Amino acid sequence: MPRLKLTLEYDGTRYVGWQLQPNGRSIQAELLDALGRLLGGPVDVTAAGRTDSGVHATGQVVCFDTERQLPLKAYWRGLNGLLPEDIAVVRAEEVPAEFDPRRWSQGKRYRYRVSNRPSRSPLRRSTHWEIFAPLQVEAMARAATHLLGRHDFSAFRASDCQAAHALREVRRLEVEGRSGDAVSIVVEGTAFLKHMVRNLAGTLVEVGKGRRSEAWVAEVLASRDRTRAGPTAPPQGLVLEEVFYGEGPPPRTAGGSADVFDDEP
Amino acid sequence: MPRLKLTLEYDGTRYVGWQLQPNGRSIQAELLDALGRLLGGPVDVTAAGRTDSGVHATGQVVCFDTERQLPLKAYWRGLNGLLPEDIAVVRAEEVPAEFDPRRWSQGKRYRYRVSNRPSRSPLRRSTHWEIFAPLQVEAMARAATHLLGRHDFSAFRASDCQAAHALREVRRLEVEGRSGDAVSIVVEGTAFLKHMVRNLAGTLVEVGKGRRSEAWVAEVLASRDRTRAGPTAPPQGLVLEEVFYGEGPPPRTAGGSADVFDDEP
Repeated sequence: MPRLKLTLEYDGTRYVGWQLQPNGRSIQAELLDALGRLLGGPVDVTAAGRTDSGVHATGQVVCFDTERQLPLKAYWRGLNGLLPEDIAVVRAEEVPAEFDPRRWSQGKRYRYRVSNRPSRSPLRRSTHWEIFAPLQVEAMARAATHLLGRHDFSAFRASDCQAAHALREVRRLEVEGRSGDAVSIVVEGTAFLKHMVRNLAGTLVEVGKGRRSEAWVAEVLASRDRTRAGPTAPPQGLVLEEVFYGEGPPPRTAGGSADVFDDEP
Repeated sequence: MPRLKLTLEYDGTRYVGWQLQPNGRSIQAELLDALGRLLGGPVDVTAAGRTDSGVHATGQVVCFDTERQLPLKAYWRGLNGLLPEDIAVVRAEEVPAEFDPRRWSQGKRYRYRVSNRPSRSPLRRSTHWEIFAPLQVEAMARAATHLLGRHDFSAFRASDCQAAHALREVRRLEVEGRSGDAVSIVVEGTAFLKHMVRNLAGTLVEVGKGRRSEAWVAEVLASRDRTRAGPTAPPQGLVLEEVFYGEGPPPRTAGGSADVFDDEP
């Protein structure tokens, strides 16, 4: 029975998030509907990770099994004809039967976008966090270096985060302000805790506003106390850009894959 | 009586365009409503140019007169509290009583955005023309050079264009494809005919698709025959980025300002 891997782009604005919910439309529900119509019966779908209501993706990865033998183009062009205009399949591939989009993931890259000018921006309103006071981008970039590497990120997890422990590795954390009145925070890591990327962004913005020092970020991290971090940045600035895979599942390391599965940044 | 100049950003998706229309909501109507509430009475508003339904702006310029003496901040923050979320004032300035956003304009810059990848893009659906076949960006850039300068642009005007003649000057026409799967066409000129920018974009895309040669663009221009140009590119890819002004009205030149007033690219 073939296993299919789909790479999805979506505008998360009008959804309750990736995951099926009793109240409100989810991206998963739309995909299950479209797949059911394409394949003529129900299927199960697994994703690399959840995304919250309002969070976008250009590279969410999902997989499902089917007994039907359709050309790959059917999953790509066919599904795109059945999905609503704010969800699309950008790639379809057949993968080994053991492929698991969570367990095989070697990491993810997110981007958090901030609009930074004195007036609100209609064209950025559903893709940026709008901050009107000028941000000190260089200070944010220096503060970000304190968060690189393998740490206990308890200070940056949501209060209802279900992960067994908070040890995570941030491989890349860059603050880019080249485009003048917008700032991008690019975060890459093996796995993430619930709301971790939005809490990292909210904390770096406190430094950018000059309310907190660069050293404060290191203190927050060391405290493991989530009440000390900056506010959780709003969802519409966040995009899941890419999920990385190798040829098979990554090797198990201490604190590694076992609790990677519940991430919901 | 003070004359105020406002610079507007808007997402044109849900509007019939800039101009008041009997059927459907226009950006002008929303601005008149908000100004009427702020000033406690009706005002007249003049814009640098019309934009079509679905066309966006980051730098539309409008002006109005008022007897009220409010601080500039009232027109900026105050109006932004009264306008819908897809329209915003980004700057407010007091200008000389002779200021006219059309007649004083020394030129405009537009950007036309194309998404160029095999699958549709939910996050670009209201800001890009989506073209699935790969475009030859270098050929488009070379073809664009034929359109630079002062020419009779009859081949690129809409059939219902009201301008007295079609002599216009294109000062800049660049095709940028650096960002991989997206292409931007940047057009700057003194003034434009109705649908001119969208017809230039549609014509350059014919070259990018390999359907037409670079020399064909020069032939279309020389023909002055609007049935020979490429299709009119769809509105959602177009943004009015900036209107340029000097200290006063520009000097009158032959074929210059007199018919600049009806442009609606």
